Amino acid sequence: MTRAPVTIVTYDWVPPFAQGYVREIRARWAAEEAGIPYRIETVPVSPKSAAHREMQPFEQVPVLKDGDLTLFESGAIALYLAEGTALLPESRRAEVTQWLIAALNSVEPQVMAWVTAGLFDKDEAAAERAMKRLQPRLAQLAAALEGRDWLVGDTFSVADLMMVEVLRGAGDDGALDDHPVLKAYVARATARPGFKKAMADHMAHWTDADRAKAEKQGAPA
Amino acid sequence: MTRAPVTIVTYDWVPPFAQGYVREIRARWAAEEAGIPYRIETVPVSPKSAAHREMQPFEQVPVLKDGDLTLFESGAIALYLAEGTALLPESRRAEVTQWLIAALNSVEPQVMAWVTAGLFDKDEAAAERAMKRLQPRLAQLAAALEGRDWLVGDTFSVADLMMVEVLRGAGDDGALDDHPVLKAYVARATARPGFKKAMADHMAHWTDADRAKAEKQGAPA
Ligand SMILES: N[C@@H](CCC(=O)N[C@@H](CS)C(=O)NCC(=O)O)C(=O)O
Ligand SMILES: N[C@@H](CCC(=O)N[C@@H](CS)C(=O)NCC(=O)O)C(=O)O
Repeated sequence: MTRAPVTIVTYDWVPPFAQGYVREIRARWAAEEAGIPYRIETVPVSPKSAAHREMQPFEQVPVLKDGDLTLFESGAIALYLAEGTALLPESRRAEVTQWLIAALNSVEPQVMAWVTAGLFDKDEAAAERAMKRLQPRLAQLAAALEGRDWLVGDTFSVADLMMVEVLRGAGDDGALDDHPVLKAYVARATARPGFKKAMADHMAHWTDADRAKAEKQGAPA
Repeated sequence: MTRAPVTIVTYDWVPPFAQGYVREIRARWAAEEAGIPYRIETVPVSPKSAAHREMQPFEQVPVLKDGDLTLFESGAIALYLAEGTALLPESRRAEVTQWLIAALNSVEPQVMAWVTAGLFDKDEAAAERAMKRLQPRLAQLAAALEGRDWLVGDTFSVADLMMVEVLRGAGDDGALDDHPVLKAYVARATARPGFKKAMADHMAHWTDADRAKAEKQGAPA
């Protein structure tokens, strides 16, 4: 069965610290795992455009386009791409959705509170409070994953994709150091060919973007 | 068609400031709108029990039980109850899911950051920063809702239920004062018979819980 490619919208450029973490990687990874071909379109990171706002009310990425449908929210995009594939077994729909939403509503906000306080606001007291909230949450998640490879049943699902994406950045900043179960979980998921392909293409996009930006800046006025 | 009642799990008691806001109201409201009968079960708010942890790894509520299925995350519970009803039209599944996840991943974390900094941490600088992030987000949401009654199409969906639940508490604390579109949206949704019934039963539960607690404390040892 051939399928028309979907379009994943990301930025035309982001600063080096964000490369590897822009949430369009979630859409790429889901498409790779689901075997759905896609192409990339870009919107300017700055200034944001009206065309962008029309697709994404919060002026963020990713956006997915599939024929007449335009979707935002990486969580909704991943669920949509997972529909009808092994990433979202119909018999386990409720549980997979539960864990995907747990990633987005119970874990990511705690991670973001810590990142925001530390990285953006440089408020050490607030960052410490956020870390004190995040750590027990991670311990609870580790307890739930103890002895299991994946969140639902024996197979990798879109819930794992989302949970690992939420944990990956936190882990790169050291927040998983006391949670070997979570570190192993992230390592297991990111060793998948689908993740590796998605990440390689994601990084190649930013390498190209850096080059285009440098050429533009170096070009005669 | 008669359907066996589902079970919604909430706490045996919460302090007055939380009454009206415990997230089990989301499950009650969804059940009312979907026409699904339910009964209430409680778990101790303090100390948390092992039985509770087994149903909800983060020791929170609500939990839904339906036969062999046990589900946590209010977002997943609402989607599950909405399945096959007008709350989740099959032809608009992706868009409804998108807005439900927007409520949980793009709006609620910003509201909670503000509530956490102000109410729990009593850190005015952090609360002010959170408010400065929340307000533009609310303005963007108001722009998306401008001229519309509901988020998807012309009918109330589970996405509205979740978005309104996320906004309601913020509105009660004054965060919607500059956003008449959002205030009207919350008023419109909470005027629905399904919300009123769910809220009345929710509050009756806490009134009973307060009375039981008072009797226990007043009882001879
Ligand atoms: N809840 C959204 C969050 C998207 C998001 O935070 N996107 C970032 C890039 S990773 C962004 O566009 N940031 C730019 C901005 O917020 O202005 C989703 O999961 O899609
Ligand atoms: N993401 C969860 C959040 C649930 C939640 O925050 N529940 C609160 C009551 S509204 C709770 O149980 N708090 C007690 C605690 O965190 O210990 C959901 O939507 O179900």
